Parts: sequence; C-alpha cells; structure tokens
Amino acid sequence: MPRKIIIDTDPGQDDAVAILLALASPAELDILGIVAVAGNVGLERNANNALKVVELSGRTDIPVYAGCSRPMRRKLVTAEHVHGVTGLDGPTLPEPQIALQPQHGVDFIIDTLMAAEPGTITLCTLGPLTNIAMALVKEPHIASRIAEIVMMGGAYFEVGNITPTAEFNIYVDPEAADIVMRCDAPLTMLPLDVTHQVLTTSERLAAIAGLGNHTGISVAQMLEFSERFDLAKYDAKGAPLHDPTVIAWLLEPELFSGRQCNVTIETASELTMGMTVADYWLITDRPRNVNFLRAADADGFYRLLTERLARLP
Amino acid sequence: MPRKIIIDTDPGQDDAVAILLALASPAELDILGIVAVAGNVGLERNANNALKVVELSGRTDIPVYAGCSRPMRRKLVTAEHVHGVTGLDGPTLPEPQIALQPQHGVDFIIDTLMAAEPGTITLCTLGPLTNIAMALVKEPHIASRIAEIVMMGGAYFEVGNITPTAEFNIYVDPEAADIVMRCDAPLTMLPLDVTHQVLTTSERLAAIAGLGNHTGISVAQMLEFSERFDLAKYDAKGAPLHDPTVIAWLLEPELFSGRQCNVTIETASELTMGMTVADYWLITDRPRNVNFLRAADADGFYRLLTERLARLP
Amino acid sequence: MPRKIIIDTDPGQDDAVAILLALASPAELDILGIVAVAGNVGLERNANNALKVVELSGRTDIPVYAGCSRPMRRKLVTAEHVHGVTGLDGPTLPEPQIALQPQHGVDFIIDTLMAAEPGTITLCTLGPLTNIAMALVKEPHIASRIAEIVMMGGAYFEVGNITPTAEFNIYVDPEAADIVMRCDAPLTMLPLDVTHQVLTTSERLAAIAGLGNHTGISVAQMLEFSERFDLAKYDAKGAPLHDPTVIAWLLEPELFSGRQCNVTIETASELTMGMTVADYWLITDRPRNVNFLRAADADGFYRLLTERLARLP
Amino acid sequence: MPRKIIIDTDPGQDDAVAILLALASPAELDILGIVAVAGNVGLERNANNALKVVELSGRTDIPVYAGCSRPMRRKLVTAEHVHGVTGLDGPTLPEPQIALQPQHGVDFIIDTLMAAEPGTITLCTLGPLTNIAMALVKEPHIASRIAEIVMMGGAYFEVGNITPTAEFNIYVDPEAADIVMRCDAPLTMLPLDVTHQVLTTSERLAAIAGLGNHTGISVAQMLEFSERFDLAKYDAKGAPLHDPTVIAWLLEPELFSGRQCNVTIETASELTMGMTVADYWLITDRPRNVNFLRAADADGFYRLLTERLARLP
Repeated sequence: MPRKIIIDTDPGQDDAVAILLALASPAELDILGIVAVAGNVGLERNANNALKVVELSGRTDIPVYAGCSRPMRRKLVTAEHVHGVTGLDGPTLPEPQIALQPQHGVDFIIDTLMAAEPGTITLCTLGPLTNIAMALVKEPHIASRIAEIVMMGGAYFEVGNITPTAEFNIYVDPEAADIVMRCDAPLTMLPLDVTHQVLTTSERLAAIAGLGNHTGISVAQMLEFSERFDLAKYDAKGAPLHDPTVIAWLLEPELFSGRQCNVTIETASELTMGMTVADYWLITDRPRNVNFLRAADADGFYRLLTERLARLP
Repeated sequence: MPRKIIIDTDPGQDDAVAILLALASPAELDILGIVAVAGNVGLERNANNALKVVELSGRTDIPVYAGCSRPMRRKLVTAEHVHGVTGLDGPTLPEPQIALQPQHGVDFIIDTLMAAEPGTITLCTLGPLTNIAMALVKEPHIASRIAEIVMMGGAYFEVGNITPTAEFNIYVDPEAADIVMRCDAPLTMLPLDVTHQVLTTSERLAAIAGLGNHTGISVAQMLEFSERFDLAKYDAKGAPLHDPTVIAWLLEPELFSGRQCNVTIETASELTMGMTVADYWLITDRPRNVNFLRAADADGFYRLLTERLARLP
Repeated sequence: MPRKIIIDTDPGQDDAVAILLALASPAELDILGIVAVAGNVGLERNANNALKVVELSGRTDIPVYAGCSRPMRRKLVTAEHVHGVTGLDGPTLPEPQIALQPQHGVDFIIDTLMAAEPGTITLCTLGPLTNIAMALVKEPHIASRIAEIVMMGGAYFEVGNITPTAEFNIYVDPEAADIVMRCDAPLTMLPLDVTHQVLTTSERLAAIAGLGNHTGISVAQMLEFSERFDLAKYDAKGAPLHDPTVIAWLLEPELFSGRQCNVTIETASELTMGMTVADYWLITDRPRNVNFLRAADADGFYRLLTERLARLP
Repeated sequence: MPRKIIIDTDPGQDDAVAILLALASPAELDILGIVAVAGNVGLERNANNALKVVELSGRTDIPVYAGCSRPMRRKLVTAEHVHGVTGLDGPTLPEPQIALQPQHGVDFIIDTLMAAEPGTITLCTLGPLTNIAMALVKEPHIASRIAEIVMMGGAYFEVGNITPTAEFNIYVDPEAADIVMRCDAPLTMLPLDVTHQVLTTSERLAAIAGLGNHTGISVAQMLEFSERFDLAKYDAKGAPLHDPTVIAWLLEPELFSGRQCNVTIETASELTMGMTVADYWLITDRPRNVNFLRAADADGFYRLLTERLARLP
C-alpha cells in the first residue's frame, strides 16, 4: 500500500521536480494534497506554480491548497534571484485550468491528520515550515498523529546559503522551524550537506532532457534556469539540487546516510538567525530529535529521478 | 450604537470582572463573542471559567469559543499561584450549563473580522496574545480590518511581575505579542503602570460586596482570593487590578492618560524575555505604534466598576 | 580615620560636583587618586576636566590618572548633547597647571589594592565601569581586597535615559558592568531611581551659587548648563543630579534607602542592551549581589551638598 | 632578517609543538617572548608548561610571561579531557629551572609593540585571545603597530569542537575574539577547517619519534596522548593537529590556501556562542577582515614539521 503524504511546498523549480518525482511514483506514494506556502516567491505565485506542476504531470486529481502568505514572526524573504520572477522560470508552462481548493492549507493539514489513523500520514516539506508550525500551534493534538515529517532544510557542514550560517527554508521562518524541531514527531532532515552532493551536471540534465517527454524537457529547462545562480557562486560543475531529495529518501532511503542527533534552531541572534545547530558529533546531552542526513549516492539519486520522470507525460 | 467587541481572555478572576463589566454595559458594548486562550491556567479551565462568568451574568446569549491551548513558541507558563487551581478560585460558581461553540476561536476571530465592515470591530485582550497573533498570521488581511486592539499587558515604569522585566500576559507568548505590536492596527495598551494604580483596597471591595447582588458578592470573593499573592509581595493596601481597565478604558477613556509611543517586545534574550520596551520619553526614532497608558483615576475607575456591577443579577 | 577611596570618573559636570563634594570632606574621605575613563566625553577631555576640578578645589595633592580610552567591546558612546563639547561646559575654568600621573589608571587601581590591607579601599565609580573591569580581569586577586564598589549607574523603575531601558554609564560598557556585577565584592548602586529624586531646582542651585565662593559659583554654572537637556526632556522643575549621590551615600547613608537584591546586566540583546535588571521584588533565586538604592531624602542631600561645598575656596 | 614574533599560548601539547617548531626556526623567526594565557588548563600550569617547552628546546634565552588567568567576561572553560591534568600529559618533562618574567604578559605585549617600529612585530596566538584583547583595550594605539595577528582558532565548514558550533580557543573568550576581529590589524586565521586536514597518523608520529632526538621523542609522546580524545570522537586515522599550523604558515605559507573574507564572532546567543561566522562565500557586505585559511597540504606540513624538529636537541 502506498505511503500517504502531504506535500508542503513553495515551488520553485526544485520543488516542482520533487512534486513530479512524487507524482511519478503512485505505487509508493499516495499524495493526499499539496499545500503552498510563501517562500521562494510569494504565496500566490507559489500556489499557482503548484497548480501548473500538477497539470504538467496530468494528475489533476490531486487537490492543491494555499496556506500561509507570511512567516510567523519575520518579514517574508524571497529568492527571485535564484528562481526568477515567477518562481518557476525556465520552461513555458500554460496557466493552470484547475483551481485551488477553498480551504486554508493549515486547516487541510489539521483536518486530514485528525481524521486519519494516527501514524499513517507523512508530511513532506519543501519550503519554510510556516504551515506545519501553524497547524501544530492551532491544534497540538496533530503532533502525535504525524507518521513523520521529512524536510528539505538546514545545513551543518555546508553551514548556509542565504546567510553564512542559515539555509533558506529555515531562515525564512526560524520560529516555525523551532516549533517543528520541538514537536516530538519523527523528523528527517535533508540539509544542504546532502543537496550539495547531488549536483545538476550537464550530463545529468542532458539525460533528463533526453527522455524526450514533455516533463523531462520541462524539468531540464527548469534546472538549467535555477542552477545559474549557484554555478556562479560555487564555481562547481553543477548546482545543488534540493527538494527532490525528500521524495527520493521516501522512495529509496538507502541512497542516503546520516545520524540521529539533536538539531536546535537559532532564533536569538541576528548574526546566526535560522542556523540549524546539529549536534552531529553527539557532544551535548540535547535530545536526538532529528534523523540528520549527511551524504547521498549522487549517481543513484539521478538514476532514480531520471527513471521516474520518464513515466510522466 | 454600541461598539462591537470580541473579548479574548484567560479567566482569571480579573478577567472575569472585566467580562462582567462589559456584560453590564450593553448600551456601549456589543460583545460578539468571548474567546478563551491558555494563560492564567490551561485552556480547558479558562474556557470553562468563561462559560461560568457568562452564566453568572445571565447573558448566556454570548457565544464562547476555545482558542489556542499553547503559546506560539514557548512552553506554557501559568499562574495558579495567583489565581488558584481552577483559575477562578474564590466564589463557588456552578458548573456551566451552556457549551462552547464548536468553531476554533482563531477562526471565529478571522471570520468575524472578514465578514464585517472594516474598522467596526475592536479586539479586547485580557490574556496572552496567542489567538490574535495566530489569526494575523493565518489571515493577514484582518490587520487592516481591526478597529483597535485594546490590551491588558506590558509594563514600563512598573517593569514586570512574572519576571523582573516582564508582565505575565506578554511573557507567556512574547512572539505573539511581537506579531501584534507590528501588525499596524491601532493599539492601546493598559500596562502594569496603570493597573498598579487601581488597587483593590478593602474599602473598594466592601463597596462591591455591599451591592448585595450575586455578581457583586462573587466579584468581591474573587478579588479577595486573587489579591492575596500581590498583597504579600508588594506590602501595599490593595492589589493591582488588571483586566477590567481594558473595559473601563472603552467606557470612560478620560479616566486614563498616557502617550502614543513605540513599544517593542524583547524576544531575543532570556534575561529580559517578554519585556515591553516602551519608548515613553520618545528618544528613539521607532514608530509610535501604541497608545501606552500610564496613569488612571483610581477612584473614578472603582466608581464606574461598582456602578456597572450593580446592574447585573 | 577617613575612609580611603579611589574615584573613577568621566567628568562631566555632575562628576565634578561629586569630586568636589569628596574633596570637601577630608575628615570622612581620603582620596588616594582620581582615575579618568572615557564616557561623557573622550578620555583626554575627561582626564583634563579631572585636573581642572582638582585645581578648582585647591587640592592639587590628589594624583590624577588616565585609564581606558575605550569600552571593552563596544564603540564609545559619548554625551556631548548633555555635557557640552568639553564635557564640563558652564563655568570658565583655567587650563590645569598640574599634570596627569604617568601610570595607567588600571595599574594604579591594581597596585593600590594589592599594596593595601584587604578591605580598606573603596572604589567610587561615576562613569562607565571599564577601568574597574579591566583591573578585575588583569588581576583577579583584587576582587577580594576591595572594601566596596559604590557606583552611580543603572536604573530599574526609572528604566533608562540613553535608551528606553539603559542608563548611560552602564550602556557605554555593558560587558564591564557585567564583570563588576559578578566580581563578588560588596556593591552599592545609586541608580536613576535615586538620582531622579534629587532634582536641581532653581532654589537649590541658587543656594549653591549664593555661597559666594568660587566653587559654589562654578558648581551652579555647571549644573545650570547640564540640566538643560533633562529639563527639556522630562518637563520637570529640575534635572536629576547623578554622581554626587555616590559621595553623599558615603557621607550620610541614612539619606538613602533600598534593598539588597540581584542586579544582572543585559548584554545579549541590542534592544535592551545595558539594562540593569534588578530583581527588586525578590522573585528570582539569583544571588543578591547589589545594595540597590531606590529612594533619597532630596532636601537632606542638598543640605549636605551645599554645606560641604561652602568649605572649598 | 628573521620575522619578530610574540607567541601567546596555553600549552597544551599542540601549543608545545608549535613553540618547538618556532624555536627550531631561528633563521625565519625571532621569538621576542612567550606569553601564557588561561585556556587548555589554568594559567599557572600553562605558564609552567611554556617554561618546560623552552627548556626542552634548550632555548632558555626566550623570556616567558604570565598573562591573564581568566577570560574577559565568561567563566574559564578548560580542556583537561583532551590535554590531561597538567595540560602537557604524555612525556615526562622535568620541572623547569628557569623562571617567569615578573612583568604581566599584557604589559609585555603593549610595551614591546609601543617600543618597536610599527609593522615589525607579529602576534602568534595559540590559545584564547584574552591577552591580545586586553592589550588592545588597555592601549588602543597598539592596533596600528601590529604587523599581523596569526591565530589558531575558529571553524567554518568544520563548524565546532567544544560545542557544535564553536572552536575551543574562541569559545573560551568570545568577547576577546570579537575585540580582535574588529581591531583593524591584519588577521590570519588557521581554523579547524585547516587543522582537521593535517592528521596525526601513526606513520607521521612514527617519523617524528624516529628522529631519535629528545625533542622528537617527546613530541611523539605528547601527540600520542592528546590525539586519544579526537581519535575516539571522529573515528579517523589520526587526530587534527592545531597550533603548529600557525608557525607553519609563517614558515611556508604556500602550504595553505584560503580567502580574505569577513569573520564575525557570535557573542549574543548561548546556543551558538563563540562561533566564527565566516562569510566564506562573500554573500554579505561585511568588511573582509580576515585571511581565512581553509585547506592545507598535509604531507608538506608534516615534512616541514619533522625536518625542523630534527634540528632541536
């Protein structure tokens, strides 16, 4: 039986690829809904991009919700410098025909968790953790009903991208991240440490483009656009690929390795705001609240991604 | 036409008196609903106490909602040492016959504000600001529709009560308070500076008890209980009376004086966590976001309170 | 036998008056030396002002040292807006004929304390605590040899002057203040709570000017200058008088009242940086490290000050 | 002409090796003095160890001073768990015959810098930065006279050792580190990023022991002792070697590579206290105050170290 998941996301090209990877894997993953959140760009565009991605995949049966349009405490920081004005620059995708669901995304998360058997629903988060944290505050009983939260976010040895010590998803809403880290649900984190190991080399993008289907071509166009910023910054052969690692971990966890350890979010100092302080060397007595992944089999990851994208239109 | 208000509260003896003062003033105040929040004691007891107070007043037409059972980020701190185990120790009030509304209090606040004409609804907050902040994050459009938020909370010259530098309502959920301070709605704050001027002297409580009605006797019993802690602490002739100042300010603002100035909430340092840093002397260039009241006419306040309580059963 | 003191100071008009009050009291106070520190204005001017004050009093036997020209960690903040460009605007005092001692003020403090019997020397601080803290770090053994540190600095109910929550002397070097608060020597603090009770009314200044001696006239001119800023700010009948309270407390402690309680310095948050968090209500279990004075007999204080100034040339 | 240096140190086995490497290189380095500071163990033991190392090398002409016995603000944290009770466990070294200089180490640093031509003296720091920061505060004019400060300390990609985000030398006295980072003298930092690349493998230690001289055998014994903690922690083939990289960089800078970038010290949050936030990717506009080294030629480093140690008795 496929694993029931809710995808919380701020698409974003890499979010889009993650969603497509999940949509291409119905035998393993049953997507109950996609919830948009403000992050890479504003909520309205992120939600619209989610609709576009669903239509691109042909899976218009998947409901899409809009969640929170602002972080809990801080002003919204966005990343148009990486993702382009629309958040999904690269391919030309038609305006979506399907519509957002009327319910607020936070309530969709709460109601779905409260209606289901405890431990049966996994939350996959590809953006800031605002919606999840808001759901946890509004209805604390959901915490014990979540099977797992699998997050793209954070960094330890790679330290940061939006600031010298913070990864974007956590930095946008550090208070939300802090709430999630302390919620007592099982947590798995795919940090920059992992995503900087699965680089979008030209060979890998060519293989995806070479699938020949509409999805493969669009994905290659997306990633060619979004990798530009990081290629210039890091002077590497490819850019990190972030959000699809969350779905890949659900599909083939053996591609990844890491350690159960404490992760605490810095929220007190502007200098290090949003840092995911991982006690990777187990030198404190803080509770080991996170399965913190550190390494990935990059070739295995791209093999999986490419195979699955081939199954879509 | 009476002013439409929503009362957000964690009763609490002084909350109860504030609610009763509002319920006794239908010509001036139209109470659309009462929303409970965790604070003085846990949410369940606070909500139950709100029902009891409504029944005590005979105004069982007023709907009561339960809001958030935890602060946004921090662990709940309560004050049974002041208010007793039930939160409303003192009089013996019967268990309520009426029931809570099924809707979440945060959604009641959002829906009410979104359905009404902008600028027509005032939020009166007598406890931590969790519900208001959660509503502002979940639906930011409410900010411009709020007529005013009138809060009991904070302190400047009186500095603090639950810690040397923080007043209880703000300390319980400083992140929520910070969200409210920055929300751009008109804000009026009744801080300890005011509430420590309206002391529950034995003469004043005797006058209320002497009204002879059930409400007056119950109110006197409540305040005799809750003043014990502060009488011992401050060695004064009476204890501060907090929440009723919010309603009194709505009824007779001329009883109070203060100044429009900046109030910023300390959320970065544990030492001063939850402090309401009021720029009372206007020495910074921070925006003047709060009508910060500093003084009250204590005799006038108790005259008003006693007169109004006389109108209830 | 007079009490042996070292005066650490950043004159400043009120520092000058404090020094003069001490110089006028040889029966009670034996001034071993005066050490200048950066504060109200830069070190060079403060040191020069100390020399001028010594000459004004005719007590040119008192050695004057220059200490630190910068705070320990933060950029120097000065207060020319209060004290004028020279730091001692008001009277026209001649350039001093005597010279500074060659030794660094920090070493003078250390050497004097290490050479004397333990418990025989009191440090009187009228400015930022940089020199004292530097001495404590450079030679920690002095801590147990200090009879007492009597400081003008801090605030609790008056909260702040240079910022909404910090008094100037502490704010200029909060890390130094923190070091001093934790040094385990006996500490007495004369905060704004006291100094805002001893106002420079026109009657009081007139009485000092009316002494007819050069010192009295100069003191009145100093305070008429320096009170301008606070008169405008607080709209009161006189300005607070700060530093002389330290000497007055040594001379007549019965003029003051307060409480032994914990004082902790805020150094973690910019918003409340330099706050002296006094646990005046004894609600924490922090150690009671400071004799925190809260009230003064203003008439008694000015009587003492005026009488003593009459003894100088 | 050899480069004039002052070594500020808390020996510590790796400090000892660094000192020996410098003592073995008189053609390149003229050691004006060695100053001890509290760090790996208490000041008294660190100073005594410095004397022992000088005697081991036969260079008893080098004066040794004791500096500060405590950090500027924080309680002293030591590392006996790594270095043993004496701080120099491993070899059996005789108690030193030579004595400490009477002058305080901070004053030695100040006086030496003030007496020399500006830009001629390099400070090599192998421990907490207390002495250097104290000298900078006591006599700010030294800043422009320092040729360079070359420090072992900090971490970016290796993040931390004493805490998840702080390296020991910086963590012990973060305020001192902050003062040094902002002092405007040329700064070079040898962080964990470098020292974790020059591992004490058994082959490398065997080569040093195999030199056959007393120094080589003692050094091997020292490092065999001190590596135990890190071998267990990191499960690697050798332990990081820290302090000698400072001297190696002076001797053969081409063994190292890095980047001029901003380094700011975290001093506001306990969670990340003492972190060296390096803007290695140049994504902020903070001033590029540090030559932050990131990589080392490990074989070249051990070749240099072994060759030089062979020159000593």
